[in-house]
Amino acid sequence: MSHQNLESLDVGAIRDEFPILQREFDGQQVVYLDNAATTQTPDQVVDAMSDYYRGYNANVHRGIHHLSQEASIAYEEAHDRVAEFIGADGREEVIFTKNTTEAENLIAYSWGLNELGPDDDVVLTEMEHHASLVTWQQIAKRAGADVKYIRVTSDGRLDMDHARELITDDTAMISAVHVSNTLGTVNPVSELVDIAHDHDALAFIDGAQAVPNRPVDVGALDADFYAFSGHKMAGPTGIGVLYGKQDLLEDMHPYLYGGDMITKVTYEDSTWNELPWKFEAGTPQIAEAVGLVAAIDWLEEIGMDRIRVHEEEIARYAYEQLAAEPDVEIYGPEPGPERGGLVGFNLESVHAHDLASIMNDHAVAIRAGDHCTQPLHDKLGVAASARASFYVYNTKEEVDKLVAAIDDARQLFA
Amino acid sequence: MSHQNLESLDVGAIRDEFPILQREFDGQQVVYLDNAATTQTPDQVVDAMSDYYRGYNANVHRGIHHLSQEASIAYEEAHDRVAEFIGADGREEVIFTKNTTEAENLIAYSWGLNELGPDDDVVLTEMEHHASLVTWQQIAKRAGADVKYIRVTSDGRLDMDHARELITDDTAMISAVHVSNTLGTVNPVSELVDIAHDHDALAFIDGAQAVPNRPVDVGALDADFYAFSGHKMAGPTGIGVLYGKQDLLEDMHPYLYGGDMITKVTYEDSTWNELPWKFEAGTPQIAEAVGLVAAIDWLEEIGMDRIRVHEEEIARYAYEQLAAEPDVEIYGPEPGPERGGLVGFNLESVHAHDLASIMNDHAVAIRAGDHCTQPLHDKLGVAASARASFYVYNTKEEVDKLVAAIDDARQLFA
Repeated sequence: MSHQNLESLDVGAIRDEFPILQREFDGQQVVYLDNAATTQTPDQVVDAMSDYYRGYNANVHRGIHHLSQEASIAYEEAHDRVAEFIGADGREEVIFTKNTTEAENLIAYSWGLNELGPDDDVVLTEMEHHASLVTWQQIAKRAGADVKYIRVTSDGRLDMDHARELITDDTAMISAVHVSNTLGTVNPVSELVDIAHDHDALAFIDGAQAVPNRPVDVGALDADFYAFSGHKMAGPTGIGVLYGKQDLLEDMHPYLYGGDMITKVTYEDSTWNELPWKFEAGTPQIAEAVGLVAAIDWLEEIGMDRIRVHEEEIARYAYEQLAAEPDVEIYGPEPGPERGGLVGFNLESVHAHDLASIMNDHAVAIRAGDHCTQPLHDKLGVAASARASFYVYNTKEEVDKLVAAIDDARQLFA
Repeated sequence: MSHQNLESLDVGAIRDEFPILQREFDGQQVVYLDNAATTQTPDQVVDAMSDYYRGYNANVHRGIHHLSQEASIAYEEAHDRVAEFIGADGREEVIFTKNTTEAENLIAYSWGLNELGPDDDVVLTEMEHHASLVTWQQIAKRAGADVKYIRVTSDGRLDMDHARELITDDTAMISAVHVSNTLGTVNPVSELVDIAHDHDALAFIDGAQAVPNRPVDVGALDADFYAFSGHKMAGPTGIGVLYGKQDLLEDMHPYLYGGDMITKVTYEDSTWNELPWKFEAGTPQIAEAVGLVAAIDWLEEIGMDRIRVHEEEIARYAYEQLAAEPDVEIYGPEPGPERGGLVGFNLESVHAHDLASIMNDHAVAIRAGDHCTQPLHDKLGVAASARASFYVYNTKEEVDKLVAAIDDARQLFA
């Protein structure tokens, strides 16, 4: 069934929309397997932004002239389109940030700095990305709150017993990755959200590695906050999304101050605009919002379910190929619904950076490093790992090239 | 002489690079005079970003593969290019933000929240944009510091005697607009910086309306912090620049937390990366940085001095035409070196919004509103003003169309 789905995807036709995938290095066509860092951008998205700049570029917020009206409508409706895509109730719940990191900081500053105190716990997971780990660590420190980490098991899953132990009535906020960018783990975020709510804690879910690859319904999930980035889902750089429940956002202090987030300003004090504008100070990412809508259109034309199936299939194939190598250690869960479209691993006796470098000699683009999860790598006992991450345009033939490059690396370092 | 400069500009050829300027509404070609809100984007800039997405899109921070190397070099060198353009000492002093507003907030949060206290004054001007006015007002409030405002004179200038009175040894920070987006005033920022430094205060200059239109040398100015936006200087949305003196930035706390701004992270604590990366958390605005460089290249090909002369010339012409109308009130200084390339005004007995609406019927795009300077408008005794703002592609013929539309408005409302 999934095979049928794969065929119906027509990856060849999809690839035609990505000129960058035709690039060659030393006569070898690029094999782009660094999608967890940034996905490639189809022509449809690039063209949408060019059309904006060439056709209706203007500052927004309902300027009276035609161009500003066109730009305002596009910008405002981009919030509606995102809301629809993720199952939010409306544009009031969709705030554009510059990236997922800023979304996490927005809540940490706006909510955390005002609400956290010495009696509060913030509960994270050991597999958090630095975007949430460092943010909550530092804001909690400023507020005198404690940070606790839900343990990761030896097979790369969250220890849910430990989660139930850590999350108590002292817990004010939990923040967890939906899909780990290092282990590939798809976390039971719905269960985490429920545990948090049982203790009147709020739940922030970092969906940077989830929204690009699978259907996400924030309403069904019941998360209080949810964040992701355009550039990891076939969209542009420079734009991220913070979803937040309307009543929570309404009660929160603003984060960035400036134009368009205010209602009335005097020399003495200010009052705030309605949602979502209260959290969007200054001239926003207008072209980027246009690009994000084009990316959502593009993804939905393919179908998020089919994208998920395709990624699971490629990840399973890659996992199996890599697991067959005697000297490759793979991190995270086995293939299946608990693993997203990436495989993190190390080749015994070859440093991840050297491996990535040899891969690059084969024009195979993977990422090597700590993937912004240094503490998790410390726990795994390695300074770095190699990571192959897949998207809708990747093929099993590309995975074969990855494996061939590993064989080459082994020989070079033998 | 300035006329010769104008001729040598070849505005016709420049206009050819902006397809949007060919747009027609009801058979009338658009007259775009809303450049203080956002300038238009030449093909060269749009193409540079498309080339990025189609040719070398990847996440940065020195990934090992070819695409990431190319993207990293482009992104890092964009900092060097900006540093060179504004006379900063190097990339360490150039931080990319999402807009000028975020740059102002960055300093207010990172420096202000940690350094300001009840004994401190923050000195602003009465003509500040909400980006600095609301930001410092709210951060000062949180810190218990006082905010004071340098008076604006009846002819739209800063009262420098009042400035010397307000800025004392209690002053910790001053923040002033280089060029007012409402009055057009070019402020004596160098003098303001010197007064601040005489009292060991820091000086933040908001250059959003200056960098697009005139040569700016932050080194010569000696400002501690200086900010501007890409989208007001023929560049893309989604990117702004914060210049800061290296020693100050090094001593400052980080602002946004997350990936790439750290050196070492454990579950307990974190240490920070070198400048400028310490202040750039998460995946940055890579395509936007590429676009900003293309915009700087484009502007420098024309020459910032010639752009300044052209704008002064157009603004003088507009001022004189408008001043000849008996029922037009113009705000701000007379034409000359103390006025930038914009004219704010009101037509007696016609609300600015109605005027802008009638202008729009003539396809003349101006901005009407409070221009994010509500308290200044209160002081002027009006709720809103009309603003025509010019850029390198505007002509005197376009100003004539503006004036003709005013005549039409007068008749309609007579």
